[in-house]
Amino acid sequence: MSSERIIYLPLGGAGEIGMNAYVYGYGPEDNERLILVDLGVTFPDMDGTPGVDLIFPDMTWLIERRDRLDAIFITHAHEDHVGAVHQFWERLGAPVYARAFTANIARRKMDEKGLPETTVKTVSAWPETVEAGPFSVGFLPISHSIPESSALVIDTPAGRLVHTGDFKLDETPVVGEAFDPALWAEVATPGIKALVCDSTNVFSQHAGRSEVTVGPEIETLVAGASGLVCATTFASNVARVKTLAEAGQRAGRSIVLLGRAMRRMIEAAIETGVLTDFPKVVSPEDAGSIPRENLMLLVTGSQGERRAASAQLARGKYNGLELKEGDLFLFSSKTIPGNEKGVIRIMNQLSEKGVDVVDDSSGLYHVSGHANRPDLERMQDIVQPQMVIPMHGEHRHLREHVKLTQRKGRAAALAINGTMLDLTGDRPEVAGFVETGRVYLDGAIQIGALDGIIRDRIRMALNGHVIVTVILDEDDEPLGNPWCEVMGLPEIGRSQAPLVDVLEEDLAQYLGRAGDRTLTDDDKLDEDMRRIARNSTMNEIGKKPEVTVIVSRLS
Amino acid sequence: MSSERIIYLPLGGAGEIGMNAYVYGYGPEDNERLILVDLGVTFPDMDGTPGVDLIFPDMTWLIERRDRLDAIFITHAHEDHVGAVHQFWERLGAPVYARAFTANIARRKMDEKGLPETTVKTVSAWPETVEAGPFSVGFLPISHSIPESSALVIDTPAGRLVHTGDFKLDETPVVGEAFDPALWAEVATPGIKALVCDSTNVFSQHAGRSEVTVGPEIETLVAGASGLVCATTFASNVARVKTLAEAGQRAGRSIVLLGRAMRRMIEAAIETGVLTDFPKVVSPEDAGSIPRENLMLLVTGSQGERRAASAQLARGKYNGLELKEGDLFLFSSKTIPGNEKGVIRIMNQLSEKGVDVVDDSSGLYHVSGHANRPDLERMQDIVQPQMVIPMHGEHRHLREHVKLTQRKGRAAALAINGTMLDLTGDRPEVAGFVETGRVYLDGAIQIGALDGIIRDRIRMALNGHVIVTVILDEDDEPLGNPWCEVMGLPEIGRSQAPLVDVLEEDLAQYLGRAGDRTLTDDDKLDEDMRRIARNSTMNEIGKKPEVTVIVSRLS
Repeated sequence: MSSERIIYLPLGGAGEIGMNAYVYGYGPEDNERLILVDLGVTFPDMDGTPGVDLIFPDMTWLIERRDRLDAIFITHAHEDHVGAVHQFWERLGAPVYARAFTANIARRKMDEKGLPETTVKTVSAWPETVEAGPFSVGFLPISHSIPESSALVIDTPAGRLVHTGDFKLDETPVVGEAFDPALWAEVATPGIKALVCDSTNVFSQHAGRSEVTVGPEIETLVAGASGLVCATTFASNVARVKTLAEAGQRAGRSIVLLGRAMRRMIEAAIETGVLTDFPKVVSPEDAGSIPRENLMLLVTGSQGERRAASAQLARGKYNGLELKEGDLFLFSSKTIPGNEKGVIRIMNQLSEKGVDVVDDSSGLYHVSGHANRPDLERMQDIVQPQMVIPMHGEHRHLREHVKLTQRKGRAAALAINGTMLDLTGDRPEVAGFVETGRVYLDGAIQIGALDGIIRDRIRMALNGHVIVTVILDEDDEPLGNPWCEVMGLPEIGRSQAPLVDVLEEDLAQYLGRAGDRTLTDDDKLDEDMRRIARNSTMNEIGKKPEVTVIVSRLS
Repeated sequence: MSSERIIYLPLGGAGEIGMNAYVYGYGPEDNERLILVDLGVTFPDMDGTPGVDLIFPDMTWLIERRDRLDAIFITHAHEDHVGAVHQFWERLGAPVYARAFTANIARRKMDEKGLPETTVKTVSAWPETVEAGPFSVGFLPISHSIPESSALVIDTPAGRLVHTGDFKLDETPVVGEAFDPALWAEVATPGIKALVCDSTNVFSQHAGRSEVTVGPEIETLVAGASGLVCATTFASNVARVKTLAEAGQRAGRSIVLLGRAMRRMIEAAIETGVLTDFPKVVSPEDAGSIPRENLMLLVTGSQGERRAASAQLARGKYNGLELKEGDLFLFSSKTIPGNEKGVIRIMNQLSEKGVDVVDDSSGLYHVSGHANRPDLERMQDIVQPQMVIPMHGEHRHLREHVKLTQRKGRAAALAINGTMLDLTGDRPEVAGFVETGRVYLDGAIQIGALDGIIRDRIRMALNGHVIVTVILDEDDEPLGNPWCEVMGLPEIGRSQAPLVDVLEEDLAQYLGRAGDRTLTDDDKLDEDMRRIARNSTMNEIGKKPEVTVIVSRLS
């Protein structure tokens, strides 16, 4: 039927790094059958989202069309791809498909919400496929910085699509499946309509390095250490954790895993068979009886997270273990932009303890999990897609990836979150725009990014908070003077009197002059007293605070 | 007199980057005559200092000893060296000495506070010296990323000290004096007791590159641009601004300076004669009539500052000028850790406009203003000091610099802010510890870092704020029910009822049960209602808010 079409709609991850969520559809316009690829989170920060626990894509568009959703596919187990699946599952109501390791992690999340194991179905690698409405979807192994990362081969009646997920071209990945160019070329043989492709490293000019290259460097470093050695990396980078552990083992050190995520990830990797020969680990308790020069700690918190094992070790003890003068601490990781200050804080705390810190500034102890610019080109050369849709990247990454593709003489489109593309023809066409946004998990509650709640928190943090209380009697006369409480403001202002006294005096004068019409009008009282409190505070301390006015009537 | 000693006491800048303030003393113990070197600021952030305008070192120790302070010397005009001098000058009351360009900037600051020009005295370069108590101090030219940066040669009756200030070893610095190794060697001939030395780049392994190397690269880039070219760098990097302007001029472009700091710095450099042949500039108004391919904008905001010209151009128009598809934007700068998100935001906004962004990831368009590790070694080799005291750096930098020095067989000491060293003998000895800290400029008021004001702001930002009001009548009976206002919290919680209703219900129940002893006890009421509000909010939304309880009595 000629009116059927293929659509692509990013709800998260396109125009940002993190929070991936991509919808594909096939069928008659506005009545396509849908699948969702990934459903991840992004992380809050004090600048824009103080107090928020996690950030999700706004899934309203898809929830409203849940009757058309046939399946959810998760490419890999990173939080920005799987982290929100349990938060929305009940409202989406479609089966979740993933490979064994990813499914193991997803089921742990479902379990946190009291959802059964059966919500997540384990799929084997390509050529096995899942039939979902008009789609037939297979998990094509690809290397990344976590086991069993997979691209999706999405067959539709109008052609084959490939959604890369996050990837690098690593033919020696230490743990898990190597990138297999022959297999990829074979999958591409029938012709690929569209390659929807990871963009995060498009500005990195040199071909990516294999995971296997860091092993010898780490081994040399650990072999030369004389005190305790502690290393941190993302727990989900199972290959790196294994490389670190083996370097420790070869140097005659017992391995200790510290931090919940570190233990959980290694457990999941062993349970699902992706990790088969990990060195024996000892518990933190048993480590106490081992000489420190025979210990190697593998710990969480490579991004400087305040509660993770790295930060706690930098501040003091963790699980009874403590770092000392002459110990070595290795960041086998890259610092994600925005996390620099937290990481530097840890480095300085370690320096105060006399611990030698080694990071990746030399380029020796870490490799990226993403395809660099030449790798992106090579991917296109292997797959030979009709068109390329860059995904997972900020606007600048998507734009550069589009330019790169066009320079290769191939059609491409820059589609940020909410941009629906029609992939049916020879080139991508914009089919419309959909409202998208972010949802915040705040404590136990989901709130909208535009609800004003976080805006109010930021304002209180920047400006302080003044609370004005006034009581009016049955005759609408002020009962005593208004009074003020302040939070987050200097106590004494320019006049050298307490700020609260100055505010109460100014407000009392106002109330003393206020006529009946004012005193019976709550809105007017609120507005006037707010203005007076703001202006008086401005005069006293040079900034305008947030003001809450509470008018209590005894009537 | 053998009881006289030389002391060194950092009050800021040692254990951090920024906020430099170093005290030197000579005389009998606890009665030394003192001089201060530099008095700078550091910048606040949302993470730790929301709403704060600037951060200063706590100068209490020196203010209490102002009768012993003979002079203040400013090495160069960067904000982290000169930015607080006008804030403390009246409380310190000593003459300020600086070279012409630095003095020009310092006087502009004094003027903001209504202080006269005479507070700052202009000094020529070495061999001119200033006599200040037992000290004789000369400004020895050294290259850095601002004109007329100077080391200080500090002669005491017990020997000569050299305080490097911030520096690099640049023999072709484009603007200002080249590093002159022969002059430095000559100054060192009588023997240098202590070299107090910049540490910020001690982890950079390769010798620093000269400012002159970026010129050809920038010229090539600008020559190849077809649309408007916009470039940003620190305004105070006058050499870089000149290099950028000349590249524009050679490409037939008219130069426009945007941003207050950019205009002010170039003005100061021309006024003081350090900049003599800057290309002619046109005003933003006149730029409107020039074709955009003949324009080059030099703008402030290389660190992503929200109000600076770069950020405003990225969002929309600035001074009537607007960037468009095909324009080029150059960050001729390095992003300071902590500023990444702001810079990336601008890059993405420019990408949305179709502007091509070039940054220093290639290493072509920026060089650091600080001495790298090999340069620090070379400095020691030239000066041959008896001891080295690393300054200006985080703990990790100071520690690495100490290790580097000791490996060269030379005495060194790690002295963070508040550590007083005695430099009289053959090696530095710790002479004591002094209380130090930070002072915040908040609006117009200086507050202490530990006053709790900023802690309260952070708590409100993370947890939201609940205000509980209750009125008690003359008989200590509640007059009506308590009521609540919330700010920065979700409106609806787990029970699907408004949070405020749930809180008011729980508090009313408590008050209904409260006996006379409770109702007459303000502290008990406050404590109980705070606890109830926190717990009820925790049940409803999964987080504990800040709570302010206001008990009003009609008696």
